[in-house]
Amino acid sequence: MSQFSIKFLPDDHAVKVEEGTTIAEAARLADVFINNLCGGEGVCGKCRVQVIKGSAEAEDQAMALLSEEEIRNGYVLACQTEIHDDLEIMIPVESRAEESQIMTGEAGEVSEAERIPLVRKIYLELPEPTIDDNISDIERVNRELRRKIGWHSFGIPLHCLRALSEKLRSNDWKVTATVVRDIRGYRIQRIEPRDTTSQNYGIAVDVGTTTIVVQLVDIDSGKVIDVEGSLNRQARYGEDVISRMIFAAKKDGLPVMTEAVVENINELVEKICERQDIAGDQINAAVAAGNTTMSHFLLGLNPSAIRLDPYVPTADVYPHVLASDVGIKINPYGVLVTLPSVASYVGGDIVAGVMSCGIADSGQIMGLIDIGTNGEIAIGNNEWLVCCSASAGPAFEGGGTRCGMRAIKGAIEKVEINNGTVEYETVGNARPRGICGSGLIDCIYELVRNGIIGADGKFNRDSGDERLLLTDEIPQYIIAPAEESETGQDIVITESDIDNLIKSKGAVFAAIKCLVDYIGLGFDQIETLHVAGGFGNFLNIPKAIAIGLLPDMPREKIKFVGNSSLAGARMCLLSEAALEKCLNISRSMTNVELSNYKPFMDEYIAALFLPHTERRLFPSVKY
Amino acid sequence: MSQFSIKFLPDDHAVKVEEGTTIAEAARLADVFINNLCGGEGVCGKCRVQVIKGSAEAEDQAMALLSEEEIRNGYVLACQTEIHDDLEIMIPVESRAEESQIMTGEAGEVSEAERIPLVRKIYLELPEPTIDDNISDIERVNRELRRKIGWHSFGIPLHCLRALSEKLRSNDWKVTATVVRDIRGYRIQRIEPRDTTSQNYGIAVDVGTTTIVVQLVDIDSGKVIDVEGSLNRQARYGEDVISRMIFAAKKDGLPVMTEAVVENINELVEKICERQDIAGDQINAAVAAGNTTMSHFLLGLNPSAIRLDPYVPTADVYPHVLASDVGIKINPYGVLVTLPSVASYVGGDIVAGVMSCGIADSGQIMGLIDIGTNGEIAIGNNEWLVCCSASAGPAFEGGGTRCGMRAIKGAIEKVEINNGTVEYETVGNARPRGICGSGLIDCIYELVRNGIIGADGKFNRDSGDERLLLTDEIPQYIIAPAEESETGQDIVITESDIDNLIKSKGAVFAAIKCLVDYIGLGFDQIETLHVAGGFGNFLNIPKAIAIGLLPDMPREKIKFVGNSSLAGARMCLLSEAALEKCLNISRSMTNVELSNYKPFMDEYIAALFLPHTERRLFPSVKY
Repeated sequence: MSQFSIKFLPDDHAVKVEEGTTIAEAARLADVFINNLCGGEGVCGKCRVQVIKGSAEAEDQAMALLSEEEIRNGYVLACQTEIHDDLEIMIPVESRAEESQIMTGEAGEVSEAERIPLVRKIYLELPEPTIDDNISDIERVNRELRRKIGWHSFGIPLHCLRALSEKLRSNDWKVTATVVRDIRGYRIQRIEPRDTTSQNYGIAVDVGTTTIVVQLVDIDSGKVIDVEGSLNRQARYGEDVISRMIFAAKKDGLPVMTEAVVENINELVEKICERQDIAGDQINAAVAAGNTTMSHFLLGLNPSAIRLDPYVPTADVYPHVLASDVGIKINPYGVLVTLPSVASYVGGDIVAGVMSCGIADSGQIMGLIDIGTNGEIAIGNNEWLVCCSASAGPAFEGGGTRCGMRAIKGAIEKVEINNGTVEYETVGNARPRGICGSGLIDCIYELVRNGIIGADGKFNRDSGDERLLLTDEIPQYIIAPAEESETGQDIVITESDIDNLIKSKGAVFAAIKCLVDYIGLGFDQIETLHVAGGFGNFLNIPKAIAIGLLPDMPREKIKFVGNSSLAGARMCLLSEAALEKCLNISRSMTNVELSNYKPFMDEYIAALFLPHTERRLFPSVKY
Repeated sequence: MSQFSIKFLPDDHAVKVEEGTTIAEAARLADVFINNLCGGEGVCGKCRVQVIKGSAEAEDQAMALLSEEEIRNGYVLACQTEIHDDLEIMIPVESRAEESQIMTGEAGEVSEAERIPLVRKIYLELPEPTIDDNISDIERVNRELRRKIGWHSFGIPLHCLRALSEKLRSNDWKVTATVVRDIRGYRIQRIEPRDTTSQNYGIAVDVGTTTIVVQLVDIDSGKVIDVEGSLNRQARYGEDVISRMIFAAKKDGLPVMTEAVVENINELVEKICERQDIAGDQINAAVAAGNTTMSHFLLGLNPSAIRLDPYVPTADVYPHVLASDVGIKINPYGVLVTLPSVASYVGGDIVAGVMSCGIADSGQIMGLIDIGTNGEIAIGNNEWLVCCSASAGPAFEGGGTRCGMRAIKGAIEKVEINNGTVEYETVGNARPRGICGSGLIDCIYELVRNGIIGADGKFNRDSGDERLLLTDEIPQYIIAPAEESETGQDIVITESDIDNLIKSKGAVFAAIKCLVDYIGLGFDQIETLHVAGGFGNFLNIPKAIAIGLLPDMPREKIKFVGNSSLAGARMCLLSEAALEKCLNISRSMTNVELSNYKPFMDEYIAALFLPHTERRLFPSVKY
């Protein structure tokens, strides 16, 4: 087979590939990141690239997603275009991914009383054996551990036992035992010479669909030492969990997904360790929280059945494994705890969130909404917990819309429209490249408030607004004209974008409404509603209520909690009680499967309106 | 460095070695077995070989152990002689090892009521998930297991969980779960497609210092399918545990010992599997019983401190590990259970023996004597258990005596002397090559009964017996003259052999006596005394009493139990209750450390007489 040389611009990455490889695949091989929302199905149009040297032919499928001008200028869809020539390819700015503003975790404090960490270091000064006290070495260690932490049986792995005799005798019977709480009791994890109790680190990992965040925690003090985040590398195989599950179902797809997330975590850990001058070997535990699919990917479990009715995961409660069993580079005998899920679409991230917000400890009814590609909702108190999940689609994360993008540099995140004038703010105050979720919500609110669109989301075609373009088949509204933008093209919101966003907000709201109805509550009975998710950072709450995404509750009852999943994972590093709570939450929380819940479809249809077909649900909204 | 070619005869094994290598080391490299009782210290003289081509110089140290004639004929000690020339070496018959008659286990039956095996196979026909019953795959498996065997939590290893989704769905939800009782509860070990419950095998392994025996057991029926034994390959590094511990303490010595025993077991398993046409993969569990040092070697634990005051093992209770963790080739996820020890010189073999003889269940007081290189003694009932161990030396196993050998082909095992005529029988009715333990006991009894030696073990130099040679420095008695023997040399018992044997029997008897006194019993209060050990097969009980090795109890109260260690291991494969009993025995049995027990030395000295200095202890003995 012929080989061709491919060069990716502007960063000048080169790679040689076999004939017939797609451009997207070549980019992966060259370690060049190209957006890819649909998992290579050729339907999202986010992977367009410009062939500037050599010949490549755009597939028929791509035509609908590219303008005539783009096709003339050599634009193709990377995922659909096979290579039959040496090529130079320019990746346009909108197809590139850059570091976004990643939420790296808020509070969720562990009280002193609950501070029995997952992994403890215990310094032991053992009495030397005598003929009257010649119990075995391991029993000598266990006896002292029982005295110090009062527990009756300690398992020990073979590697540790093999080294024990020598370690005790060459260190004058002074050693530090690392003891880990495992799913069925305590276990010795390692024995180190002398007193190393001052070095006991753990990592909390938020394994998000879009971003991965690692926090380094000093287990003894409970302090967060450092944090590092990045886009989830799996995104190159599909933006949302569904496309990734489809990818994973292909031959050898699953190990690729697992490797992607594991390498991703390893890179973040390495960065932090280098910066803090800490040996990765001194990290004795990792706690990971993610949705059910991400948790499956992390552990290499097959997620195929999650995607299909009746939505069955391989596991909800995951075994505690050695970090090295999945390839995570902390101490090879360190433990990896993956927080338990409730169901296929309610994962360990929401369990961690419910725990860290204290919902399961509260005498009053509280709620948590975690908005991402899925909207996950939990409501309850210390007596009961109910949750559900609805597919919100990628609109709030910048997918499924013409100029949508993640909340990274150049994304329009705030919009105001007054008398035909549009004012906007971008992330990093850069020239605009597109619109992120919070900007889109603002847009819709401003468009409806100004009468440019109606409550049905359709443009008022007679408004005469200069920014409203009716020339294309789909009407669109210019938020930032070409001359202001980084891409040199108009940044617009189209009628079909608005339609998508209304569907997304409708799904989230319908899910909240169904869950509240299911319990037999009114919104007024919810004392506090926590809103979480990377998204939540940039969300204008009053506008989110005004478009009918969030329920019309008093503003002071709605609380931002940032990355509640990461906070929960960190708490589980620091407190056995927190981990126990997560297990209880995952076991006791009732999942309402909305696809099986008849009123959901009616509620969803009723919510496809701004703010809602039933105005009485949004009494404070005036437009 | 120069290399030399070495050829070993009679089997014509060749090897090339570096200058300075010892002949013993060259033999190991050529996989040729040469006797080696002292671990290469040059003191036992059992590794003499004849250099028939090339030049090799015997070391000074060897001179004392070789006769002048031997030295003239090119005999050297293999362990002491360095190679500086191409050599052809004849291994004389007495330095070769052949298969001995290995005791491959007697009874120890498990009652039906106690038949909950260590590893169970449970066939599951799971209901297919529906939207109303969409619990996770593993929870579906666990639910059915709880229904079938009533237990609440099943751990599962990651490899098993990773394959679960696919395995359930491609086999119509019909699978067989292998569930193993581990040290802290039940655990799923493997999930197989469809119904494989008819194939559930386990192996019981007796890891003896001298011999290793493997039994293949059908776990469901409890039947022994096959058995295979061999000499312990570790013997090439030293005959007794002490020499092997010394070898293991050398650089990289321990892994060599572990590999030797593991490969030994693997070969036996392979032989059996081939013969029975069973896949090794279908063997789901191994239970091993051995003395504390052998158990340490098997698991790769450092035994160094066992040997030295205050005699501390790394562990008494061993973790259950994966067979593959130590390299045993059964199912790689099969469990290896090593039976717990009591102390450094009272191992899992004696615990298994006590369990299999039913001593710990008995209302009456019983005893067990397991005679090997160590004599191990346990006494007790269902309320208390006491044990001790005494170094008997290698005399009963054929070491430490001029013509001593193991109970293999050609060994004199029975002797009678009447009016100057010696009659003997050999193992396999072959021409005699030496005398094994039972033969030596007979010799001593016959010599003293005929007045050829006195009660002090010294030859009556005035007896005028033709077979008594007083020409050498050490007097000796000819059992088989050169013309009858395979070796072409007289087979003799010397005064110093007799001295060694009296020391050995003295140590064993003193240990029994001390233990009985320690408890405050008389021998008459012991209802049954079990005698075990490879040795026991050939032991003439009345003669063993008459020389003062065993106490003077009614003959019907002394029972042969054969290989009680192997029987115990097999019972633990078949019954959780048996394994639990072993744990309880190891925890509750009180070990009397004889090296620390003051009366022992007096008892030992008192026992250095035939039958004993206190004749009243042996009222039935008449000579």
